[in-house]
Amino acid sequence: MDIAALRDANPEHWKLATAIRTLAIDAVQAANSGHPGMPMGMADVATVLYRNHLKFDAKAPNWADRDRFVLSAGHGSMLLYALLYLTGYEQATLEEVKNFRQWGARMAGHPEYGHLEGVETTTGPLGQGISTAVGMAIAEKSMKARFGKSVVDHKIWVIAGDGCLMEGISQEAIGLAGKQELDNLIVLWDNNNITIDGRVTVSDKTDQRARFAASGWEVLSCDGHDPADIDRALTEAKKAKGPVLVDCKTIIGFGSPNKADSYSVHGAPLGADEIAATREVYGWNYGPFEIPADVKADWEAIGAKGAAEHAEWAARLDALSASKKAEFERQMSRGVPKKLASAIRAFKKANSEAAPKVATRKASEMVLGAINPVVPETIGGSADLTGSNLTKTSDISDFMPDNRKGRYMRYGIREHAMAAAMNGMYLHGGVRPYGGTFFCFTDYARGAMRLSSLMGVPAVYVMTHDSIGLGEDGPTHQPVEHLAICRATPNTWTFRPADVIETAEAWELALSSESTPSVLALSRQNLPTLRTTHSQKNLSAQGAYVIAEAEGKRQAIIMATGSEVEIALKARDILQGEAIGTRVVSMPCMELFAAQPEAYRRKILPPGAVRVAVEAAIRQPWDRWLLGERGTEKKAAFVGMEGFGASAPADRLYSEFGITAEAVAEKVKALL
Amino acid sequence: MDIAALRDANPEHWKLATAIRTLAIDAVQAANSGHPGMPMGMADVATVLYRNHLKFDAKAPNWADRDRFVLSAGHGSMLLYALLYLTGYEQATLEEVKNFRQWGARMAGHPEYGHLEGVETTTGPLGQGISTAVGMAIAEKSMKARFGKSVVDHKIWVIAGDGCLMEGISQEAIGLAGKQELDNLIVLWDNNNITIDGRVTVSDKTDQRARFAASGWEVLSCDGHDPADIDRALTEAKKAKGPVLVDCKTIIGFGSPNKADSYSVHGAPLGADEIAATREVYGWNYGPFEIPADVKADWEAIGAKGAAEHAEWAARLDALSASKKAEFERQMSRGVPKKLASAIRAFKKANSEAAPKVATRKASEMVLGAINPVVPETIGGSADLTGSNLTKTSDISDFMPDNRKGRYMRYGIREHAMAAAMNGMYLHGGVRPYGGTFFCFTDYARGAMRLSSLMGVPAVYVMTHDSIGLGEDGPTHQPVEHLAICRATPNTWTFRPADVIETAEAWELALSSESTPSVLALSRQNLPTLRTTHSQKNLSAQGAYVIAEAEGKRQAIIMATGSEVEIALKARDILQGEAIGTRVVSMPCMELFAAQPEAYRRKILPPGAVRVAVEAAIRQPWDRWLLGERGTEKKAAFVGMEGFGASAPADRLYSEFGITAEAVAEKVKALL
Repeated sequence: MDIAALRDANPEHWKLATAIRTLAIDAVQAANSGHPGMPMGMADVATVLYRNHLKFDAKAPNWADRDRFVLSAGHGSMLLYALLYLTGYEQATLEEVKNFRQWGARMAGHPEYGHLEGVETTTGPLGQGISTAVGMAIAEKSMKARFGKSVVDHKIWVIAGDGCLMEGISQEAIGLAGKQELDNLIVLWDNNNITIDGRVTVSDKTDQRARFAASGWEVLSCDGHDPADIDRALTEAKKAKGPVLVDCKTIIGFGSPNKADSYSVHGAPLGADEIAATREVYGWNYGPFEIPADVKADWEAIGAKGAAEHAEWAARLDALSASKKAEFERQMSRGVPKKLASAIRAFKKANSEAAPKVATRKASEMVLGAINPVVPETIGGSADLTGSNLTKTSDISDFMPDNRKGRYMRYGIREHAMAAAMNGMYLHGGVRPYGGTFFCFTDYARGAMRLSSLMGVPAVYVMTHDSIGLGEDGPTHQPVEHLAICRATPNTWTFRPADVIETAEAWELALSSESTPSVLALSRQNLPTLRTTHSQKNLSAQGAYVIAEAEGKRQAIIMATGSEVEIALKARDILQGEAIGTRVVSMPCMELFAAQPEAYRRKILPPGAVRVAVEAAIRQPWDRWLLGERGTEKKAAFVGMEGFGASAPADRLYSEFGITAEAVAEKVKALL
Repeated sequence: MDIAALRDANPEHWKLATAIRTLAIDAVQAANSGHPGMPMGMADVATVLYRNHLKFDAKAPNWADRDRFVLSAGHGSMLLYALLYLTGYEQATLEEVKNFRQWGARMAGHPEYGHLEGVETTTGPLGQGISTAVGMAIAEKSMKARFGKSVVDHKIWVIAGDGCLMEGISQEAIGLAGKQELDNLIVLWDNNNITIDGRVTVSDKTDQRARFAASGWEVLSCDGHDPADIDRALTEAKKAKGPVLVDCKTIIGFGSPNKADSYSVHGAPLGADEIAATREVYGWNYGPFEIPADVKADWEAIGAKGAAEHAEWAARLDALSASKKAEFERQMSRGVPKKLASAIRAFKKANSEAAPKVATRKASEMVLGAINPVVPETIGGSADLTGSNLTKTSDISDFMPDNRKGRYMRYGIREHAMAAAMNGMYLHGGVRPYGGTFFCFTDYARGAMRLSSLMGVPAVYVMTHDSIGLGEDGPTHQPVEHLAICRATPNTWTFRPADVIETAEAWELALSSESTPSVLALSRQNLPTLRTTHSQKNLSAQGAYVIAEAEGKRQAIIMATGSEVEIALKARDILQGEAIGTRVVSMPCMELFAAQPEAYRRKILPPGAVRVAVEAAIRQPWDRWLLGERGTEKKAAFVGMEGFGASAPADRLYSEFGITAEAVAEKVKALL
């Protein structure tokens, strides 16, 4: 490639792109770690995107109608950071660029949502960005349908690498976006034919263009180092009738005389000599981190060009009716409607009286029946288990290309992309996402669920069939370790409600959460209503509470969650029948209980009494409550699972695995 | 569709296929749960496969050179069970068919490996079967290259549904198989256009044929209810030059007059009336579970037809040299070479003397350098992180279409398919698989890793960059909950070795394991050799041991794993300097320690002394060792992580998160 010719053909573009490249090179060199190759390769595409196509206003990073830019190839974080600095995002200072990858840096190793304005989502784990972007595109379509094109009309741009496209989650995202005909989604593929192990062809010969086309995408291509050609492709992409893949043929480490087009430039500093040689190629006679004033000014002009459009948009927003504008702003700011609390209270009151015997998955559907009418920004869905997860209420219709007001996503058998899309919907704003699958199949979605926790996205995971209680489908479908997994994950609320009332309380907490995702672990099997006395207060909010007090001297405390609270209460009946005073503690959310003041924890779990915990899952998370909080090993026991489940009717499984009221009562007596 | 015409056109085939269909219908009805629709739809394809193509001998289910049949759409388990019963597999009795989905059943809800001969792998979680089959196909190619076509020459057949093809893991498997040109892999796609939520088109419009073709597959199609057309396609498939997708157009619930071609027949019994009506359509005047003697005899003849070929094969095996035959049998029976133990001992001796300061990922590479030459059946690999995971030793080359003796897999950025392929390699026999990625990205592989544990497949997961110690890449790459996750999963050994010696011991245990997978959590950062005195004995085998005894009165016990053992030892130095007798316990494998007799556990963790555990991860798994085993809350503390990590150099992170020798020593003193 004749770099000098490129340089001379469009010197203004060249300077803009070179500013990105050299900042990436210098920051990685200073940090002595990072990934220079990708920013060097994609700087031309990014320059054309930001200069000619991306709708943004650097001084208003949270403008609701901005285009979203997602760097799915998150290791190339310096590409994004350089763009944010150059275009004049307030938080993206040169000092921050120099502090790349250091303690407390806004410019972390990979883009971290919440650290730096302009970072739309956390990326780094490959394939997440492109899948999260699908959720953003869905949210844009939904908001546009609900509030009108005058205030919602933007694109979602993604830069994805070969790694993103090889991850399985990408196929789920591609299939979902294709089916949904998301013409607001444009993926710029950094087609440099290099992965960490060498040429892509070492491990793959997929024709990516044909693969995307097979799922209904439009496919374009361009020379990723020719600004005119890039501009042509991006212009065309914006007119497409469906999601677009732009195959950008690039050279990783572009311009590095000895390292370009090789893995060596992917994930390590270039080194002083190669940096000097590369600057020579670029014709860039400036020191590290030095950007000439005219180049910086040109970039800042790019950052400012959206301001006028932003102002026009603001006028259009003002032109909406006051109530519509207020509702738009409420949804974008993610506040929960005030009606939610009263709707939940009314639901609890009615159901504590009616006392239905229903599975908590059914209870969840009933609660959603109260929630969806008063929280118009929910978008529910299921990974092809709608009739099992019971996530669709009768008042909402399918979100489809011809029904963008629909609030129900048919995610297909795509748990991972579902979770990522939920992240994207929330990050976009204006949507409160929930989605379901079998609890066991959180295994398939963990990559994206972890990002919910890390980013502080309060998505709601409706995870039904939460134990061996699902019965005959057997151990592949029976979670035993998954409660421990969710509880081990930081910033996650794991709810396992015991009845319809706790289910309503869990939903209220999950939807009111500002920065913590929730997992609702729900039963397949019917459970009686235990809370037949209405309480205005959300008792689940403290994580655990006394659901049945001991009569007489308190000798034992039985702790349980979900379907095992009924067992605990029956065990209490047995024990009280033998004059053994027994308290039952329902613990729908360990994380919230752990967050209570010590005095509250002590009130619920006073020392002295023997403690037995019962949960149809493995013991690991229970040791704290059995042995800690002033418990002692000699006075503690656990009734639950030690290994995988089995295939048989649920009652038989509970009996064979010894998770019964009788077994719990025996454990208590053995400890006394 | 004119069913009567089909019935009359080929009455012999019709009877065979109808036997499958009615057994599936009857078993699901008797169990009052299960999935009749898929077996009814795919019975014709399965009949032609077993009758004309599948190489098997029902009386020798473990014949090494049999074709493998994988029911990736595992919910259709009765299809497989009916075939095994009809063709005369000894364990697959009619009584077992009648006991479908009951406690203790060999015929579990989904096919469970190890429950019933003829079940080649556990399926049910969608997409796993097709991906596991890729591993089987790789193993076949490897074995064929090493032992010759005279004794290894078979096909891997898969039945996959739309659900399997929508899961992201399927794309990873398709890409890997395409690149590897696995012409021994034939996937029969049950293309019935129905998923649980309705028509496939509700959630997907992917052209599956184009998608497979894009990754280098050959694509064929057939009418899945026309035996002649099926036979034509399968005949053609066997001649292909790469992996083959056969698009079998079928009708779910074929023959059910009111439920065919709808979701209602997917996952629920037909009910007595519909069963009667369906039998009418089939022209099948027999009672539940009743198979006419002539039909059973015809099926048993199909089950016996491979016996001659089996005998010829046995003769060819005998014709190998005695040593080659013995090696073939050893590898197929999965015994570990005797040389392994002495190789590990020699490695330990040399390295306890040399005492290198290396990362445990580097130590792992060094150990593999001793292992790979003496265990010729290992096939290593990495999900595109070879230079980081250090999984490739210099003596092994890439497994490629033109180098089937290669023992190193370039899995690409496909963690999930890598894990599933490892399962398949082991289940096939003749291969001992290990594979690497960053520990954090076990999140992407969990679905298949869980199946390793459930099936008892001793795959070795080489998971490097095991903590915040990886530094600048930040929290998306830093595991904090993953040790808890692995330890919460039944039948998993989670090793976190502290130095090169423990790494060697972990490898020895992992490779010697007969039915438990191992996760090796390995450091990015360098660690000193702590075990500088050679011990013949594998000290890690008991899970935990005293690595440094207290001098003077034992007042404290510090427990640690991996990179934190060094910190524990430094804390001990501080404490001993203040005359506080401190024992340090290295606990490379909690699961193995938990399995020790109480006397051993008590010896390692005697009561009395204060206990502090240090691990750069969340506390959940430690409560047992801190508070249990006669520990007490007042005398226990934990030094580790409470939330996600951050992006900064590793030393800074350890310091900022307070995981230091000084902090540990302070905790001890505060407890005393």
